[in-house]
Amino acid sequence: MNYKMMGKFIAQILIIEAIFMIPAMFISLGYGEYSAMWSFLVSLAACAVVSGVLFLSCKGAPSAFYAKEGLVCVGLSWIVLSLFGCLPFFLSREIPNYIDALFEIVSGFTTTGSSVVANVEGLSHGIIYWRSFSNWLGGMGVLVFLLAFTGAKGSGFTMHLLRAESPGPNVGKLVPKMRSTASILYIIYIVMTVINFLFLIFGKMPVFDAVCTAMSTAGTGGFGIKNDSFASFSPYIQNVTTVFMILFAVNFSCYYLLLLGQFKSVFKDEELRVFIGIILGAVLLITLDIRSLYGSLEETVRHAFFQVGTLISSTGFASTDFDLWPSFSKAILICIMVVGACAGSTGGGLKVARLLLLLKGLRRNIRQTLNPQKVQVIRNNDAAVSEKVLDNTNAYLAAYGLILFISFVLVSIDGFSVDTNFSAVVSCFNNMGPGFAAVGPTCNFGGYSAFSKIVLSLDMLLGRLEIFPILVLFSRSTWKR
Amino acid sequence: MNYKMMGKFIAQILIIEAIFMIPAMFISLGYGEYSAMWSFLVSLAACAVVSGVLFLSCKGAPSAFYAKEGLVCVGLSWIVLSLFGCLPFFLSREIPNYIDALFEIVSGFTTTGSSVVANVEGLSHGIIYWRSFSNWLGGMGVLVFLLAFTGAKGSGFTMHLLRAESPGPNVGKLVPKMRSTASILYIIYIVMTVINFLFLIFGKMPVFDAVCTAMSTAGTGGFGIKNDSFASFSPYIQNVTTVFMILFAVNFSCYYLLLLGQFKSVFKDEELRVFIGIILGAVLLITLDIRSLYGSLEETVRHAFFQVGTLISSTGFASTDFDLWPSFSKAILICIMVVGACAGSTGGGLKVARLLLLLKGLRRNIRQTLNPQKVQVIRNNDAAVSEKVLDNTNAYLAAYGLILFISFVLVSIDGFSVDTNFSAVVSCFNNMGPGFAAVGPTCNFGGYSAFSKIVLSLDMLLGRLEIFPILVLFSRSTWKR
Repeated sequence: MNYKMMGKFIAQILIIEAIFMIPAMFISLGYGEYSAMWSFLVSLAACAVVSGVLFLSCKGAPSAFYAKEGLVCVGLSWIVLSLFGCLPFFLSREIPNYIDALFEIVSGFTTTGSSVVANVEGLSHGIIYWRSFSNWLGGMGVLVFLLAFTGAKGSGFTMHLLRAESPGPNVGKLVPKMRSTASILYIIYIVMTVINFLFLIFGKMPVFDAVCTAMSTAGTGGFGIKNDSFASFSPYIQNVTTVFMILFAVNFSCYYLLLLGQFKSVFKDEELRVFIGIILGAVLLITLDIRSLYGSLEETVRHAFFQVGTLISSTGFASTDFDLWPSFSKAILICIMVVGACAGSTGGGLKVARLLLLLKGLRRNIRQTLNPQKVQVIRNNDAAVSEKVLDNTNAYLAAYGLILFISFVLVSIDGFSVDTNFSAVVSCFNNMGPGFAAVGPTCNFGGYSAFSKIVLSLDMLLGRLEIFPILVLFSRSTWKR
Repeated sequence: MNYKMMGKFIAQILIIEAIFMIPAMFISLGYGEYSAMWSFLVSLAACAVVSGVLFLSCKGAPSAFYAKEGLVCVGLSWIVLSLFGCLPFFLSREIPNYIDALFEIVSGFTTTGSSVVANVEGLSHGIIYWRSFSNWLGGMGVLVFLLAFTGAKGSGFTMHLLRAESPGPNVGKLVPKMRSTASILYIIYIVMTVINFLFLIFGKMPVFDAVCTAMSTAGTGGFGIKNDSFASFSPYIQNVTTVFMILFAVNFSCYYLLLLGQFKSVFKDEELRVFIGIILGAVLLITLDIRSLYGSLEETVRHAFFQVGTLISSTGFASTDFDLWPSFSKAILICIMVVGACAGSTGGGLKVARLLLLLKGLRRNIRQTLNPQKVQVIRNNDAAVSEKVLDNTNAYLAAYGLILFISFVLVSIDGFSVDTNFSAVVSCFNNMGPGFAAVGPTCNFGGYSAFSKIVLSLDMLLGRLEIFPILVLFSRSTWKR
């Protein structure tokens, strides 16, 4: 293990985090919230000091860096980021318990959006900004940011990092240089966030609210600024948010292809087609199922679209209490929760691309059983998929199931109902936000014990980093020698 | 497709079913239940007539027979077996709706044990016997029976059938000849059932009750003879049943090895060790969790053992209403439900052997990510596992998840709660019996619509035959040409 290089890397992450705290500090200052301002100042000082110590003690690191270090680096970075990122919540006493604060920031960075805060409107502006910003940064990834704008060196190194942090079964390079890929992704991300912000401003949302809402939407995070999430917003704002949640759940390489004018290959993209098909099908079925609950067809379709958009993109906003919907609609929502967004987007879940690979693997298996002599290759957008990617996808599914059940048992110790516990775990693992029953859209995770909150925090990290960067931290063979 | 040979095969299955109805008919006669007696007579006549027509129209079948036909044959046999097997329930008007009767017999043959009958004690003796017998026959399999005692010819042919009907990731031949393997399995099965029966008789259970209970236990089916399942039986009978449920959930090849005196290889069997470890761990944790619910330690451990035994073996009896247990215990029960029994036993679920393969596949995947240059082989009991078996296991898991979610959505149309629907599907698919909430151990499946009952019946068949023999029936490539 190249400990020195990892130390230097984490030092860089901490400096970036310190820099990101500066705007939050000034927002607190601007609103005259001095307690929050001081907590940001102390937190960023802590980041800077630890970073400095790490830099000094990790001088002269060798430059050799392998896949193993890449995974470990990503896992550790996110944990360190969270341990320091929750300090403002804790120090300002707005979330007085450290474990609660940690849960909240992990939920933010992983774009889960589950909260322990019952009264969001009672938080100070700086803290609300920091929550929403954590959604935004976590959406595209802090390591990708580092690559894009500070330029970490070593091409093998950057490839390993990007692969570990980006969601989906296989990471496509947009351009030959990995660093340029990261920059392109972040620029598209920033531009789309700004457009979302402008649309919200156009709907007469106050500037501060629009900034926070646009950031939470862009990261498909789901930290809201109102206690009732989106229920009291105007239909216009709800619809704008529906559209942007879905847009941010699409593979970003599609947007790059659009910029290059390759409309045909976007139109033909299998994952995108299936993703849109699932959304339309789900909205249609739910609209039929809940048509008697709302006054007009417009309102029914709007709520159906909003909830499907929020859950398939794993954002987790709510325009209505879908826990009160009939069972059939709830069952569809649970399914799209698990499926999740497209690979290479800011959304969570299993990912549509991975679902497609699993289905194709299954179809091949059946065909091979029926015709054992024929060799069958699995294709994605007409290109053959390597067996390594298939093997990873299968291992992912196995790990997914295993972690789900272990977490479910551990969280059950607190004694909540089976559906509460199961949906809490599924929701955290898929970076969703709300679950059902006692963790439904009108409730929060404050009732769980510290132990359960740690388990759920780990689940969120496992879900966001797609299991392996966190799992290797617990593997004996990572640390030996 | 060799339709003629398949027709001949199904004709044989129907004749066997007709023969099996004869004892049930005489039991009805003996107890003076003439309505039931007539219904058995008409049913067996129907089997005989259809069988005769099939025999005559499928004369001169070519003997070539491939894997595809093996799968299709198994799937169709079980469906035909059920369509005719439910006739006595329907004709005797003891289950007056044909779909309900079909659900009941599918639940019987697949050893699920879910019932639509609220008042079991109100059924006639012949019908109760037929329910329990369906558990017994389905446990080891009707095609295995056919191979064992009537001798279907063609070694490739029998191999395909046995592989398709026997549970687990890979079917071991005990002896070089497949037919002898089938005979050995059935003889062990019969002897163990008789021993179970004698133990029950020793506990002063009436002979008829003991016959039915032993058959339901042996098949790990779970059709009880009392409305409260096992709650009113003596502790002795509960304990005997616990032991036998667990014994019937062990891979039968272990018993063959014991008969051969190879104690060491049984003792070293990985699957058996993990299976026993899971049972002991689960009993320990549940005992600690529910210690305040029962009067004495003996009673607590007895109920913990009984419920763990009944759910890991997928039998589905209940000695107490475990739906009232605390969440932690329920979470453990749900996990062992999903894990299920050993491969090559009469139990259902994912199977311990398959779980081990998934875990080993996952471990290999992590190791290969960390050390990409090393080739890693997965071993089971020190023998290398073929990549084909691993691929099948992965495909199985993917199909399992997919079918679970589709069934869940379809069943949700009826409007029951999310936990009822989800546990109903999981319970049927794992051939368990009771679920939680409205399908808990004190309830039944009678409330579901005909459509949901058909979906759940298919789930039971998919679970018992491990997906592929049923899935190929719905595949276009099976029927083309």
